[in-house]
Amino acid sequence: MKTVSTSKSHGGIQGVYSHASEACACDMTFAVFVPPQAKDGPVPVLWYLSGLTCTHANVMDKGEYRRLAAELGLMIVCPDTSPRGEGIPDEKDNWQFGSGAGFYVDATQAPFAKNYRMYSYVIEELPALIAANFPADMSRQSITGHSMGGHGALTIALKNPERFKSCSAFAPIAQPSTAGWSKPALEKYLGTDEAAWRAYDTTLLIEDGKRFPEFLADQGTSDGFLQEGLRPWLLEDACKKAGIGLTLRMQDGYDHSYNFISTFMDDHLRWHAARLG
Amino acid sequence: MKTVSTSKSHGGIQGVYSHASEACACDMTFAVFVPPQAKDGPVPVLWYLSGLTCTHANVMDKGEYRRLAAELGLMIVCPDTSPRGEGIPDEKDNWQFGSGAGFYVDATQAPFAKNYRMYSYVIEELPALIAANFPADMSRQSITGHSMGGHGALTIALKNPERFKSCSAFAPIAQPSTAGWSKPALEKYLGTDEAAWRAYDTTLLIEDGKRFPEFLADQGTSDGFLQEGLRPWLLEDACKKAGIGLTLRMQDGYDHSYNFISTFMDDHLRWHAARLG
Repeated sequence: MKTVSTSKSHGGIQGVYSHASEACACDMTFAVFVPPQAKDGPVPVLWYLSGLTCTHANVMDKGEYRRLAAELGLMIVCPDTSPRGEGIPDEKDNWQFGSGAGFYVDATQAPFAKNYRMYSYVIEELPALIAANFPADMSRQSITGHSMGGHGALTIALKNPERFKSCSAFAPIAQPSTAGWSKPALEKYLGTDEAAWRAYDTTLLIEDGKRFPEFLADQGTSDGFLQEGLRPWLLEDACKKAGIGLTLRMQDGYDHSYNFISTFMDDHLRWHAARLG
Repeated sequence: MKTVSTSKSHGGIQGVYSHASEACACDMTFAVFVPPQAKDGPVPVLWYLSGLTCTHANVMDKGEYRRLAAELGLMIVCPDTSPRGEGIPDEKDNWQFGSGAGFYVDATQAPFAKNYRMYSYVIEELPALIAANFPADMSRQSITGHSMGGHGALTIALKNPERFKSCSAFAPIAQPSTAGWSKPALEKYLGTDEAAWRAYDTTLLIEDGKRFPEFLADQGTSDGFLQEGLRPWLLEDACKKAGIGLTLRMQDGYDHSYNFISTFMDDHLRWHAARLG
């Protein structure tokens, strides 16, 4: 692991690190905020998964999580959204596939299966690296994310309920297997047999019996992706049928940007802190 | 005035606007955050002047001012740091002069005098535009800034004490006329007669009798520009001799980045809000 940069912020340290990833077969970069409480012992970890086109840096720059994370004593870990670099298969002009669009799946189709293994990266390799190198209490983890990263957080929590104390999402993609901006990606990463997509679709995972105690989700009413891409009512239906507690808050006049995310970041941090104990 | 973008944030509106500037003889872009209290009538205005290489966008993205500005009812106005665009004289490879480095002066030397008039822009033209187009209470204005923009805030407050209720700065350039990264710019903008530079140097303005009731300044001890470029002890000496109240806080371990600025942004907003009434 290589330290790219560290900078004191709100009494803690905002760092950027890189490492040679086995899961993705390339160098990967990620951001970690270590709160001041880490001086006194391991602190709980909140994972933040970013949306399409983002790197680790977008939420680090615009997410406004450090002030309250420093107060609550939360470590914030922000992975990249895909493998990157020369030699990584990509579609340069397509922001919904390839670089910046890993969708938190383990690809099975050539030529993507070698690198696009963001599920394994986020759930296995990076947690091991964090546990080994940071003052993290890995028995206390929670997860959140935005848009594609909201989809990532919900699906990962549903498949690993024993790992995470809580899960929330900002404007998550509720049903990627039927949305225009995600369906072509699932087909290219996972093949044409739609049965394989179910493991990466929140509503279908719930239909297939996966459970998580409760979710918090915020969604802006002026979000340009609301009707076609995000469709929170599908999440609402799935949770209702399954008896999963969902706090879905429609936020009047908010869009899909970090102005929306940063506005409600405090609420999400407090939600997770309360459940991390 | 043209609206480039607006986005709801923390209950207010973060907007970006552009207009044909007379002072700078080019199109200029600026950012304004209008807090929710503006629905009920004009709100006080805090000016934020940015540092070298920045545009209006850096503090808008990374300054973390909206949450508390929305609570305190402050409008935040963030101008660009120089004229920009084709046909504007510039030194492309020099980050300490030209684009992004207007130093808040009115240039008198060819070919810069036509466009590099950031003092007039910030103190006359943009305030008139704000007064005409936003719910601003122009009888209640304060000013702050970072680095080159801290220099801008201090010099502008000293020359216009009747205009501003309060002034603060993050890591300001205390004496630009003798610092390596600013002296060459002053020479090119204002000519070789150093007497002309005194009007744009905080310590020399104070020496020449300009006064402001009190300043708040924060300075990181791990700031790479501290010893050569910023030199807060010169500000301290000048204020002491003149009997100007200076609250200078040396912040242990902080650097020159927005991680430093955003950490202490709340303190500055509260300082100004208390004095804006």
